[in-house]
Amino acid sequence: MRTVDLIRRKRDSGELAPEEIQQLIAAYTRGDVPDYQMSAWLMAVVLRGMSRTEIAALTDAMLHSGRVLDFSDLAGLKVDKHSTGGVGDKTSLIIAPIVAAGGLKVPMISGRGLGHSGGTLDKLESIPGFNVNLSLAEFRHVLETCGCALIGQTAEIAPADKKIYALRDVTSTVESPALICASIMSKKLAEGIDALVLDVKTGSGAFMKKIEDAENLAGLLVETGKSMGKKVVALLTDMNQPLGRKAGNAMEVAESIEVLTGGGPADLRELCLVLAAWMFFLGERVKTLDEGKKLSSDLIASGQAREKFREIVGLQGGDVGVIDDPHRLARARQTLNVASAASGYIDAIQCEQLGVACVVLGGGREKKEDKIDPAVGLEFHKRIGDLVERGEVLCTVHYNSDARLAEARRLVETAYRIETEKLKSLPPLIYRVIGA
Amino acid sequence: MRTVDLIRRKRDSGELAPEEIQQLIAAYTRGDVPDYQMSAWLMAVVLRGMSRTEIAALTDAMLHSGRVLDFSDLAGLKVDKHSTGGVGDKTSLIIAPIVAAGGLKVPMISGRGLGHSGGTLDKLESIPGFNVNLSLAEFRHVLETCGCALIGQTAEIAPADKKIYALRDVTSTVESPALICASIMSKKLAEGIDALVLDVKTGSGAFMKKIEDAENLAGLLVETGKSMGKKVVALLTDMNQPLGRKAGNAMEVAESIEVLTGGGPADLRELCLVLAAWMFFLGERVKTLDEGKKLSSDLIASGQAREKFREIVGLQGGDVGVIDDPHRLARARQTLNVASAASGYIDAIQCEQLGVACVVLGGGREKKEDKIDPAVGLEFHKRIGDLVERGEVLCTVHYNSDARLAEARRLVETAYRIETEKLKSLPPLIYRVIGA
Repeated sequence: MRTVDLIRRKRDSGELAPEEIQQLIAAYTRGDVPDYQMSAWLMAVVLRGMSRTEIAALTDAMLHSGRVLDFSDLAGLKVDKHSTGGVGDKTSLIIAPIVAAGGLKVPMISGRGLGHSGGTLDKLESIPGFNVNLSLAEFRHVLETCGCALIGQTAEIAPADKKIYALRDVTSTVESPALICASIMSKKLAEGIDALVLDVKTGSGAFMKKIEDAENLAGLLVETGKSMGKKVVALLTDMNQPLGRKAGNAMEVAESIEVLTGGGPADLRELCLVLAAWMFFLGERVKTLDEGKKLSSDLIASGQAREKFREIVGLQGGDVGVIDDPHRLARARQTLNVASAASGYIDAIQCEQLGVACVVLGGGREKKEDKIDPAVGLEFHKRIGDLVERGEVLCTVHYNSDARLAEARRLVETAYRIETEKLKSLPPLIYRVIGA
Repeated sequence: MRTVDLIRRKRDSGELAPEEIQQLIAAYTRGDVPDYQMSAWLMAVVLRGMSRTEIAALTDAMLHSGRVLDFSDLAGLKVDKHSTGGVGDKTSLIIAPIVAAGGLKVPMISGRGLGHSGGTLDKLESIPGFNVNLSLAEFRHVLETCGCALIGQTAEIAPADKKIYALRDVTSTVESPALICASIMSKKLAEGIDALVLDVKTGSGAFMKKIEDAENLAGLLVETGKSMGKKVVALLTDMNQPLGRKAGNAMEVAESIEVLTGGGPADLRELCLVLAAWMFFLGERVKTLDEGKKLSSDLIASGQAREKFREIVGLQGGDVGVIDDPHRLARARQTLNVASAASGYIDAIQCEQLGVACVVLGGGREKKEDKIDPAVGLEFHKRIGDLVERGEVLCTVHYNSDARLAEARRLVETAYRIETEKLKSLPPLIYRVIGA
């Protein structure tokens, strides 16, 4: 089959057979299909969509473009969690040690910050010495030793995804549920897991602003995972405001340690308990979600989850001293309080704008080559529905560069909408569970 | 403006400003925009379309990517004709000398065969010695000397079109009225002409099978040409059966000489007289179309058109002997008669299939590198509406290779539909004129 005919078929809203998709992806990965043909095909996919069968075939083809890890010889079911990303979303750092402390294996391959959203790898690297670039042998060793390892995508894992993702980024072919689904699932299924909990974010700080789009993506992800024989559920969760009280790499590590120590903000703690409960449930460690939530809570209360985090940090070369003394983490030299310009109730937050403010401060990358400043970030003092007085502090900006402050400040100042009437209903933490 | 944003805007059905299109095309021609971005943009254009303003801007950008010829110092208005292509369509070879003999200048830049349709350059090259690869200086010299020159697209003419066309061919982004229009018009407007007559074909042997699609393209072409200050009309003409009685390069040259000598098939002769009349009319050589048709007819009858053809052939290095003795043209070694399998009336002809049969015989290219056999082709003995007896000859295949005959024969045999009832109305030669 000629590539040009496959492009034409998709352009004309036709369906490709699984083996055609398989051949196309394999040929592209080998370099036998040029970028200009793949980008035309990707644009046709963005505008024409893909059937469920095509998405499953694409995921499978991308998954098998590289190594698929096999940890079946290790005791305990292998489970993971993936979030579609947002502002202040640091649940991976908390859940992974909880679930490993509970006896399951968590082989977690994570990503870096993308656009306005933070990335688990960047957060972990704010722990001095922490190495996310383990070889697959080292990954296996850490997983075997302590039940959890946290690394970045290696060259062996889903190379087709790596190549296609880079092309999508420069050809405006990112925003396709089919392509997003295949990209996420091919990487996650390569981890050798038995079960996967998806945290699909929706709201002003998520990539899927509209709940219907998030629901559609969640449905695709769950169905694709199940068609590959995995246990999968997706939680549709709120991202209309930051999760927890802190955004910024080192600040989020500190907040994660707070939760693992039994404290931390209520929203963050609750979401972590629910996500961990689902992982315990799908991992057959507990019989009910309530039991899973209680187990998670107990593992925090007993200090076991915190100790597990120490163990992981140590095995991956990080400074374990930060766990008892988070002040060892990088801290910004200066802070600035952003106060409310009006009195009233917080009605809405432009959450993506807060994420962009973190990037502007140096906490994320505007260009691929940018180096991250782990110390900078934002501290949120108010949430949607809160009553604020004029002059009361909404957010504290932690910064290192005066040059970067002005734009970040403007973004933060304009992110909050204050109204005289209180909202009738606040956004829930979790909208619904899909695939259960 | 970043290329990725222009791609996104078109993907989301937005409109690009003329200067954005200008910059995109200029950057692509320079090599500053990579193929993979251009192909994603082209696919978005195919699926989202372009406004009239965008099409005019694209045409203008492609036109000015190279040299725009200027023959304003030569006496007489400069006129040309362009056909969207079909089977047996050899009108350029007949009209160009008629119109030049009538005192106008015809600077004609033509193409090669494309898909199932023949190309003027390939036909001309079946005249021994005929050189279509003139430099622009030689082109000007021949035009100045005899009023007409027939060449191929040079590297200086619309290089953006050349580059984009090659990319479209391998990325399934050919079938876009906007892109087809810009491609045709950028080349034609580069010829330095004052007026252009377009022959837009529709029917089973045309690229636009449906009359609405052909009408839409004709409207775009006329409007774009007029917006660039040219006089333009489009004739919507029939391609549900071959034009004339012959298809194949040397065979079509012979048939063209027949018409220039006062004979030839009625349909071909009539279409040539009408197209030439429009050229005379737009070129302000005559006051009415009737006058233009009479002038054309007279120029044939007096032998002046035939002498003009001889002059052109001579100036472009061709063997002028073929004009008096068409037997000097290449002739196939063998012929095979394809007979009707049934008695009845010819109801429909799969005309594209007949064009493909010519390509299969070696008269066109299946791959870019293929060498053309000028001698092979088809001779048609019956037209739509004709009564045929079982066993009566429909078509004679002129071939040189037994290996190629079988498939060509099968294509010809299955191209004719015979019914017992005669069609109520036959397809007209010309449907309508657009832009007059």
